Amino acid sequence: MRRVAIAGVGHTDIMFDSPKTEVEMFAEAAMDAINESNLKPNDIQAINCGNALGDFSEGQGMVQSYIADDIGCFNVPATRFESACASATLGIRDAAMWVASGQYDIVLAGGTEKATAMGTPLATRTFAMGEDSRYDSPSGMTFPGFFAMLAHLYCSRYNIPLEKLKEQMAMVSVQSHHYGVNNPHAQFKKERTVEQVLSSFMIASPLQLFDCCPFSDGAAAVVVASEDVAKKLTDKPVYIVGTGQASAGKMSAQYKYLPRIRAREVSVKQAYDMAGLGPEDIDICELHDCFSIASIIAVESLGFADFGHGGELWEKGETKIGSKIPVNISGGLKSKGHPIGATGASQTYEIVKQLRGELVDQGRQVEGARVGLVDTLGGDGLSCNLILKAD
Amino acid sequence: MRRVAIAGVGHTDIMFDSPKTEVEMFAEAAMDAINESNLKPNDIQAINCGNALGDFSEGQGMVQSYIADDIGCFNVPATRFESACASATLGIRDAAMWVASGQYDIVLAGGTEKATAMGTPLATRTFAMGEDSRYDSPSGMTFPGFFAMLAHLYCSRYNIPLEKLKEQMAMVSVQSHHYGVNNPHAQFKKERTVEQVLSSFMIASPLQLFDCCPFSDGAAAVVVASEDVAKKLTDKPVYIVGTGQASAGKMSAQYKYLPRIRAREVSVKQAYDMAGLGPEDIDICELHDCFSIASIIAVESLGFADFGHGGELWEKGETKIGSKIPVNISGGLKSKGHPIGATGASQTYEIVKQLRGELVDQGRQVEGARVGLVDTLGGDGLSCNLILKAD
Repeated sequence: MRRVAIAGVGHTDIMFDSPKTEVEMFAEAAMDAINESNLKPNDIQAINCGNALGDFSEGQGMVQSYIADDIGCFNVPATRFESACASATLGIRDAAMWVASGQYDIVLAGGTEKATAMGTPLATRTFAMGEDSRYDSPSGMTFPGFFAMLAHLYCSRYNIPLEKLKEQMAMVSVQSHHYGVNNPHAQFKKERTVEQVLSSFMIASPLQLFDCCPFSDGAAAVVVASEDVAKKLTDKPVYIVGTGQASAGKMSAQYKYLPRIRAREVSVKQAYDMAGLGPEDIDICELHDCFSIASIIAVESLGFADFGHGGELWEKGETKIGSKIPVNISGGLKSKGHPIGATGASQTYEIVKQLRGELVDQGRQVEGARVGLVDTLGGDGLSCNLILKAD
Repeated sequence: MRRVAIAGVGHTDIMFDSPKTEVEMFAEAAMDAINESNLKPNDIQAINCGNALGDFSEGQGMVQSYIADDIGCFNVPATRFESACASATLGIRDAAMWVASGQYDIVLAGGTEKATAMGTPLATRTFAMGEDSRYDSPSGMTFPGFFAMLAHLYCSRYNIPLEKLKEQMAMVSVQSHHYGVNNPHAQFKKERTVEQVLSSFMIASPLQLFDCCPFSDGAAAVVVASEDVAKKLTDKPVYIVGTGQASAGKMSAQYKYLPRIRAREVSVKQAYDMAGLGPEDIDICELHDCFSIASIIAVESLGFADFGHGGELWEKGETKIGSKIPVNISGGLKSKGHPIGATGASQTYEIVKQLRGELVDQGRQVEGARVGLVDTLGGDGLSCNLILKAD
């Protein structure tokens, strides 16, 4: 199998109530990625597009055909990936495979989502379709409820006082908001304090408003190319050296593992093994912080902290730039925003920019970063991971 | 790249108002395919599942995770493909790639759909999401309207009197109903006459009720394996020797080509070229007869008839068993039924059974069939083709 690299990336601003359609947002990000790769649309041999809620938000199924049409990639194979928040990550992983195998040299992969126009109550309910519709969502469980339950289970399993966890969770959000200020694409560019988080509106106890990421509109795209082609297109190829994917299943099937996400452990092990790397090799990580508790359990399953000790990374400042494992320097889903079906591509965009060393001007470059990890959850546990490496 | 084969297949009955959920229907088909392959669920390394409308019909997004869970394939990578009617075909094509590349040895691919519970008016409207939501569906265009327009354009371009085309279209439906009688999985097992078709309720002129396929519930699945593995699992491996896929785009982008579907011509050429075969090598074809006019234009683009002369194949009986190119001997979407996201897997199931010579008892075996073609449209033209070959 051939080595595979990302030759170019593109990203829209992430925002509330974008005036653009999902097709138009994707086209904006895609054309930036295509131009940055010194390509023309005709050079694209296939498109993989993540999209979760377009059927509901715009009455648009199979958006990929109209995306291909819109950016002038006429009649290419275009495929939609729907796996809730992990949609785009699955699309990038699949694109890497088609290129690694030699079938295609250049595949455009990314995601697009317009989640805000339907309003938070309806978005929350439609988004709960990423749970099992036979057992879980009919019980009234939504994702804030799922992660709130998980936070209580976390305290119970590891004998951590809830008040202590809440402070750790607040520190997660405060850091994300801090770095989001300097990300020009971020939805929120506003510092928050621990006190503000702890006094914010209660959503689903113990999760308060500032423990929760927003719904967002936005798109991101990357050009995936074979090593030979990528080297001709850019002097800063970023290699996809490891990928992993695992499904979760209904909550009751996970009961042995919650508050850990078993699928993430399976998925990231595949990625580490494929890359021949381990957590100690990761210089920077974009992980799935849909809620602050999600960040804490993520660093444990990804191998950056012992189980039951994830929150201490934020207490000790070990997730900051210049420290042990810089996490979500983009601002994460919390501050940068969470355009659901595009989120995995947005995370990948950030890691590529970091590994290229292109964020110095934004004041949030992780100096000397060579290896980065993308971590995305879809629904109640489906996981997908990518490991990227600078040349 | 390795040769890839189908080692086992499974298929539910196709029906109106199934008492089962999409997960349960898929599990039924999948377990049949797994058992027929002499495998256990734990042997499955990845799952690709086509599903189009589950978000609306059952409030179930990313159904693939719950499918994996349900059949005991815990934590495997499970991916949903949504491309309207072509969803499952894309999933099978993708599975073939992952196996051909050597990344996986055994992938389960198929589709599931529960389209009837929402009722025909709502299903017709939600299904129209497979058109461009910016330009096409807001005009009131649904798929009966799209294909009705196409029928008029067909008459106009090729100077065929509408009454003559209507008779040809009726013959398409009559043949499909004839063969469907002997398919135990078919939704309709009832002969129809040309007179009955021509006197049926008008849906969208010139398409009458019996020119239109139904909405259906059902699932189908196939086990895709490397040649080496498949030969150990079955003495009748059926090889996937060619695949193709192409996107279409909004209707106005296709104006030069309608009433041809340009994407189909691009897609089937990829499949023929990959297989080193041409239309003259195809012994049997399952094609996308969502409406009777769709069959007529399909045989032209697939290379079985000259443009403007597709309907003559049915007039001359050349699409019947024992004739030039047996078409839709399963009964097709018209009689067998159209479980949208499962249809491509259902077509593949039929071709595999034919190439294995296993339909003698059903009285619809195409004797000596060695090479079969699967043809699926998604939305207003996205196309996917598979060429299958007996050992």
